[in-house]
Order: sequence, then C-alpha cells, then structure tokens
Amino acid sequence: MEFSHVVRARRMVRNYDPDRPVPDEVLSRVLENAVRAPSAGFSQGWDFVVLRSDEERAAFWEATTDPASPPDSWLRGILNAPCLIVCCSNPGAYLDRYAEPDKGWTDRDAGRWPVPYWDVDTGMAALLMLLTAVDEELAGLFFGVPVERLDTVREALGIPDDRNLVGVVSLGYRAPDRKSPSLSRGRREVEQVAHAGRFGTPLDL
Amino acid sequence: MEFSHVVRARRMVRNYDPDRPVPDEVLSRVLENAVRAPSAGFSQGWDFVVLRSDEERAAFWEATTDPASPPDSWLRGILNAPCLIVCCSNPGAYLDRYAEPDKGWTDRDAGRWPVPYWDVDTGMAALLMLLTAVDEELAGLFFGVPVERLDTVREALGIPDDRNLVGVVSLGYRAPDRKSPSLSRGRREVEQVAHAGRFGTPLDL
Repeated sequence: MEFSHVVRARRMVRNYDPDRPVPDEVLSRVLENAVRAPSAGFSQGWDFVVLRSDEERAAFWEATTDPASPPDSWLRGILNAPCLIVCCSNPGAYLDRYAEPDKGWTDRDAGRWPVPYWDVDTGMAALLMLLTAVDEELAGLFFGVPVERLDTVREALGIPDDRNLVGVVSLGYRAPDRKSPSLSRGRREVEQVAHAGRFGTPLDL
Repeated sequence: MEFSHVVRARRMVRNYDPDRPVPDEVLSRVLENAVRAPSAGFSQGWDFVVLRSDEERAAFWEATTDPASPPDSWLRGILNAPCLIVCCSNPGAYLDRYAEPDKGWTDRDAGRWPVPYWDVDTGMAALLMLLTAVDEELAGLFFGVPVERLDTVREALGIPDDRNLVGVVSLGYRAPDRKSPSLSRGRREVEQVAHAGRFGTPLDL
C-alpha cells in the first residue's frame, strides 16, 4: 500500500472479528517492521510479549480488569482482539549502552536523558506495528496499562520488574466500532502546532 | 512509495546537501503526516518549531554547542541540514485532557501515567516525519538536545518552560555520510525480542 495512504487510513480500532485470527505471516511482518524502529545509540531496548491463545489473552485481561465489574463497551470490543502485543521498554539497556566508551556516561545516571528514550523508542516500534496492520488490511489499537495494574500484568506474564510497560497493541480484522468520543475534539492542524523560527511565530507554507 | 519500502529504506542520515533546501510542499507533507500521529485521549500535546533560514538554524546550534570547540565530524554533517524541526511535548495538555469528565483524573497527577505519553506521542510524530522524508526521497535524523542545553534552547527559540524538548528532526537531501558506529552492534531480530504468551518463551512463527 502507498505510504501516504497507510498514514491517512490508520486509526485506532476498538472492535475486531473474534473469528479471524491474525495470520502468522502478518504477525511476522508486524514484528519485522517494529524492530526497524530507530533507537538512541541503537540500544533497541524493547521486548514484545505476544498473546494469541484464549488462555494467554485471558491472563492479560484478568490482570488488568476487575472481574466483579461487567465489561464496558470499550472492553467488550477489545476482548474480541485475537492478538495482543505487550510492548515493554528496558531502561537498563540504554544506561548500559551509554556507559560504553563511545558515549561515556559511565555513571548510568538517568538524569542525563532529556526524555526517556527507552519509552519513546518503544512507542515508535508500536506505531510501526499499527501502520503495518493497516498495510496488511488489519487494524489495531494502542492502549496503556493502568498504573495500579502494572505489577499484576508483570506477574501474570513473567515480565521482569526492570521493564516499563509502555502500552499494548491489539491487532485483528476490523469489526464495526464506535469512534472514540475524543475525536470530537478535532485535530490540531499544522497551522496550530507548527512555528516558524521561533515558538509563537506562524509558519506560512 | 510502498509502505514496506519506506520502512526498510529509512535510516538516520547525518550529512546533507547544503545547497538543496527542503521544498515547502515537502515540509508541508512532513508536518501533515506528523499531526496524524496517535495521542492519548487525542490530546495532541505537541508543537514543532521549524528552523530553515541560516539565522534560525545558527540560533539553535549556538544554543546547543560550545563555540570554543571545533565541530566534530557529526556536527559538521548535521550543520549542513537545511531544515531542523524541534519537537516539543506539552505534559500539561495531557493532564488537562484527562481532567475532563470522560477521564476524570481531576487531580492532574502525573503519577497516574505509566509512561509519559506526551513524550511517546511526540516521538511518534517525529517518526512519521522521518518516514515521510524517505517517502519524499529526502533523509532525516532524530537527535536529542543535551540536558545541560535544554534551557538555552528554550530561551533561544522562545519555547515555554512547560514544554519538554523531545528531540530534533533534521531534514534534507542526502550527502555521503559515515554510518553510525552504533550499527555494528547489530539489529536485535524478532526472535530475540518477541515472546510467546509469556516473557522468555520463544515465539515460533
């Protein structure tokens, strides 16, 4: 598919056909593209836990939701996703990489980093998954794990404590869903977010 | 260009033809795609300061480098970039968005966020810029501002203190450059980063 079409067609999809799993070759392409995300110092401090069977996905949902509450419409849609990819970042891999002689930050001080590139780079990998899903005529969603469930998810999936859970990509074939009410906020167009030369100076293209 | 080709062709380019500016229509497409990045709650808490004239770019480089030191080979290449886009995130936009009734985090507590999605989402926008550059047969680089220069850059470009400087995208037409020595580390392939069902279980596709 044309790149510009993929970018324009991508949107977060919150319901999937539960009877159509993600073919292995599609999952493979999704992951092959994810590992082409850029990363600071080529640290590549990311891991992706792929949940496909009913049991694997149930373990995730049990760890993130309250079984006493009936699922809301958001959850009912996402529960249909045949594949979840839990995207983890590894801050230690970056601190180790930048302690090497060519970088020289031997104190491994996270305060040297203007933003946490481990999370940013893993987010870029997640975006490549979402775009690849569109290119393969599937759909995806990226969503975060609630802070109060992070430890439960780590435990359920055996994820080491030193990993950050950056978010989860759900993948599948689209089913009808409700557009996110957030979209009614409207897109901030280029004129609103781009500045020429100095913050606050309109960019005229 | 085919999406899969764009993903495969993208790499960080550290030298540019100084005599070929980025055409306005290309810059426009780069920014149009950037604002199609996803964002938590459609917060879109990002701003992009575009530096194109010699004076604008010099202001940035003066704020980030030591005039007493001769430029190293990295800097000599990047100084040729005809266009720099300083990518800023706005944490307050996310805290405001999630204080609205449909989200309900009225305490505006940043501790509710598992990772700083303001930085992650702005990073996704930067990746869309880099990919769009490839699609337009230009090249780009994403690099961070050193922590000790963040305030100087904010001051030089009039960027409010409440914005994070997530990184800078340089854009231009490629000139010969040296591959990053980091690449000799080798890519972590899918088999090394993907886990099936549980962290540590190999994924067999």
